[in-house]
Amino acid sequence: MRVRHKPWAKEKIEQYPQFVIPNPQDYKGKWTDLFGNDKPLHIEVGTGKGQFISEMARVHPDINYIGIELQQSVIVTALDKVIEADVPNVKLLHTDGADLRNFFSQGDVARVYLNFSDPWPKNRHEKRRLTHHSFLKIYEEILGDQGEIHFKTDNRGLFEYSLVSFSHYGMKLNGVWLDLHDSDYEGNIMTEYEEKFTAKGHPIYRCEVQFTDKEQKRKRLFSDVQI
Amino acid sequence: MRVRHKPWAKEKIEQYPQFVIPNPQDYKGKWTDLFGNDKPLHIEVGTGKGQFISEMARVHPDINYIGIELQQSVIVTALDKVIEADVPNVKLLHTDGADLRNFFSQGDVARVYLNFSDPWPKNRHEKRRLTHHSFLKIYEEILGDQGEIHFKTDNRGLFEYSLVSFSHYGMKLNGVWLDLHDSDYEGNIMTEYEEKFTAKGHPIYRCEVQFTDKEQKRKRLFSDVQI
Repeated sequence: MRVRHKPWAKEKIEQYPQFVIPNPQDYKGKWTDLFGNDKPLHIEVGTGKGQFISEMARVHPDINYIGIELQQSVIVTALDKVIEADVPNVKLLHTDGADLRNFFSQGDVARVYLNFSDPWPKNRHEKRRLTHHSFLKIYEEILGDQGEIHFKTDNRGLFEYSLVSFSHYGMKLNGVWLDLHDSDYEGNIMTEYEEKFTAKGHPIYRCEVQFTDKEQKRKRLFSDVQI
Repeated sequence: MRVRHKPWAKEKIEQYPQFVIPNPQDYKGKWTDLFGNDKPLHIEVGTGKGQFISEMARVHPDINYIGIELQQSVIVTALDKVIEADVPNVKLLHTDGADLRNFFSQGDVARVYLNFSDPWPKNRHEKRRLTHHSFLKIYEEILGDQGEIHFKTDNRGLFEYSLVSFSHYGMKLNGVWLDLHDSDYEGNIMTEYEEKFTAKGHPIYRCEVQFTDKEQKRKRLFSDVQI
């Protein structure tokens, strides 16, 4: 996302430590302390302007949400949305998806959302795609057993790549929608980008994939053999 | 496919036993005898009017092909195509996909093609879909280790269903194309139906999935544990 430089963004972010958590490493393994409850935690990696995460928090009060965004000039807009949402179950982290393990222990997170991630279409940039196996390893390490990734994008190439990447990682595909807005899927919350793109009539691709714990993998794949 | 009844079809099929194999059970485990060589065998389940299988045979002389079709009034058209192709590496079977194990032993087949299979969109007909797990079990039993299914369809619902079905069966997705005719995929051979449908500008979905042998599954999924 190309955005205008906002020199005042840093200061504004620092004014709202209750929304943009300044010391996330302190909550590693104890996010329940921050939220004051033990509701499941869902995170969005690359939260952009924040419409999705703040709206999800409003619609699902029984889930805690954290939106993660690296770009200062973008997260400051997400901050506005979170202030406006005025609900206790959504926070923001101003950091990089590659650093998630510094802030979350195994099992801290129940679900990862990836929405309209940068497609990095060139082969030499494959490692930067948020569905590259190096990122899947990170998600696996912070998710609990059977943790899920819910992914949507308008980018066909990225979606094709990601389905293969998930499969080669041994993940289980639980649902796929090849034209989300012309389907029976209910409860979709649109991102800013999705609203703009959908107006052009192009399909949105979506899938739900799940890490399988070792016992499950054993049952699913080795039911016919003794191991 | 709704087709005109052709009372003369049975007789014509019987006139060409060198193309429509009348006694396939005799070749179970020894299809190399029929073809007179040990080239890999690829089969198409639901071969329809036969353009795909006869054209594939022409383009790939190093592969043996068998097209399988239950409808007498349809396979008789495929027979015309096979006669016209005039190549030694394509045969037809007039039988049901559910009976494949009567005619093929484990390892007889190297690849299964499913092209524009009947979508059976109603939930109560799920078991009839050629990508239902009961069919996957059949394909697994006749394919060799690491055998592949190559599947294409214009039916979005069937494709969504099938991706999930393959994954839940523990198969590995090696490639996916969400708009085959607007992709870099080379060497596509169109079916009659595909030609008609593509002219309308709708996308063709395609994927390649693979059964994984036990050793592979172990390496892929259990590399971090002793089992």
